[in-house]
Amino acid sequence: MDKLAIIRQPVADELLSYKALFDSALAHEDDFLGRALDYVRRREGKMMRPVLVLLMAKECGAVSEKSLRAAVTLELLHTASLVHDDVVDESGERRGQRSVNAMFGNQVAVLVGDYLLSTALLQAALTGEVEIVEIIAQLGGILSEGEVFQLANIRNERASEEAYFHIIRHKTAALFAACAELGALSAGGDAAYVAQARHFGELIGLCFQIRDDIFDYFSDAAIGKPTGNDMAEGKLTLPAIYALQQTDRADVHEWAARIKGGQATPDEIAQMVAFTKEAGGIAYAEKRMQELHAEALALVDTWKHDEVREALRHYLDFVVERKW
Amino acid sequence: MDKLAIIRQPVADELLSYKALFDSALAHEDDFLGRALDYVRRREGKMMRPVLVLLMAKECGAVSEKSLRAAVTLELLHTASLVHDDVVDESGERRGQRSVNAMFGNQVAVLVGDYLLSTALLQAALTGEVEIVEIIAQLGGILSEGEVFQLANIRNERASEEAYFHIIRHKTAALFAACAELGALSAGGDAAYVAQARHFGELIGLCFQIRDDIFDYFSDAAIGKPTGNDMAEGKLTLPAIYALQQTDRADVHEWAARIKGGQATPDEIAQMVAFTKEAGGIAYAEKRMQELHAEALALVDTWKHDEVREALRHYLDFVVERKW
Repeated sequence: MDKLAIIRQPVADELLSYKALFDSALAHEDDFLGRALDYVRRREGKMMRPVLVLLMAKECGAVSEKSLRAAVTLELLHTASLVHDDVVDESGERRGQRSVNAMFGNQVAVLVGDYLLSTALLQAALTGEVEIVEIIAQLGGILSEGEVFQLANIRNERASEEAYFHIIRHKTAALFAACAELGALSAGGDAAYVAQARHFGELIGLCFQIRDDIFDYFSDAAIGKPTGNDMAEGKLTLPAIYALQQTDRADVHEWAARIKGGQATPDEIAQMVAFTKEAGGIAYAEKRMQELHAEALALVDTWKHDEVREALRHYLDFVVERKW
Repeated sequence: MDKLAIIRQPVADELLSYKALFDSALAHEDDFLGRALDYVRRREGKMMRPVLVLLMAKECGAVSEKSLRAAVTLELLHTASLVHDDVVDESGERRGQRSVNAMFGNQVAVLVGDYLLSTALLQAALTGEVEIVEIIAQLGGILSEGEVFQLANIRNERASEEAYFHIIRHKTAALFAACAELGALSAGGDAAYVAQARHFGELIGLCFQIRDDIFDYFSDAAIGKPTGNDMAEGKLTLPAIYALQQTDRADVHEWAARIKGGQATPDEIAQMVAFTKEAGGIAYAEKRMQELHAEALALVDTWKHDEVREALRHYLDFVVERKW
């Protein structure tokens, strides 16, 4: 059995119900909107976020209809933010497929994103739990704050580890935290378990984003992004931030300033990538990620259900080892 | 007392509470996001939507905290959709002020719009009423559907009155309908009053949009839009749709086709505007608007509170007579 199958094993049946609910939430009789939503729906990913919701619910007892709706809500919120991010980043592609903006234009992409946000909210409302709606509303705010912080940070002169973690906590980890929290909450978990779940989800999200950022220092056709893509967008991530702290070299700090100013040449970016590796930036980021991974594993060990624990351990491994 | 003052009179105190809540909902400690939100907040409009919420609540008894939150939710939802619409339409201005996208760029504008949507949702959740959240979620979907329908309709060859009303019901009237409905609901109105309120709001919204569309056939520096702006964007509105139905002239139908195809010259647009007036298109749209206005007035007459009835009559007059 491959890793994904092991991860999904304890909630395999529930995932089918989830998928049916997700598909029905995205059906639309209007020809044009229906086609755009259909396009979004067919780009099904690995369902890492819904799986996390369902596993956390399972650990707590059983996956309820509320859990399924929470999972659909969170996946829709995630999808909406991807659609808007591609407009914001002017991306033509996402994981090898044309982005919604490339396919239907920016106008439609902004509106389809809005429609997805509303649909997410509707699914949250249909749980009948105001607490769930409140968490979703706060999450929506946090996700857009994260993106705004990132944009504002590009314009800041200094890159710091603190600002980096502030951004990834908002733009990535908050979503995983909400997945785990709502999984626990929707299955009737007690306050202690819900809080633990939230922390666990945040750790996963931090690992996820650090891994994602490390990818950017290596060329890989499968991911479909060139090396140094983040730097080309003015972003310095954890490996480069660490590397910068290790040196007084004026040329390196000059590259960093030009990258953040959006003025760096491809050659300067390549030099910064090379310097980051030499200075141990990748190793440092890996180490930070492994620390977070270990902290998350320790939480898993305190839970009850063998099958769920096994799945969550594989989930954590998958996040830090993945190649996509 | 001017018309706006008469309209606001029965809820003057409550409007102050509304404004304080609105301002606090848009405060943000982050420097960059805070500045963008501050810019949005300072562009305070005539508060027509919140005033409607409060008046409908007042008619029903008293404006509750839930009413205030519903009013803030709806105004935020409206504001979010304006911010995104300006990105979609690539507008540099809104009512004489620079749009958020012109001021901060498209990237920030998309994210600020998302942030406003989340803030709207949070205020809805804070009412503690799942029914209110559900209405808001549905409304969010309807508003983005309306904009998508409009985009898709531009590409359709034929302009019909039916498609026109379908679009304006979604993109404009649904918001006014929700304002009136949530005003009634938040003040504990019974099912009959809530349904009546919703219908009343929809009538207001239809009048509002027809008036807005009529403006486009006249030049007015105060509105800040050139004559024929809608046509330049490929839109044929009620006056032109009626005018087209009155003629077999090949040249007129050719202009219409070129307008919808986005290929019309300024001269062709000017000729289409002139023809629409000659063929009685403006008079027809005015007549349709007055019919809706009369239907709304008849509803007002069935309500109890003199002061509220008086305010709502002025509200209706203001919508159809306004010059902005």
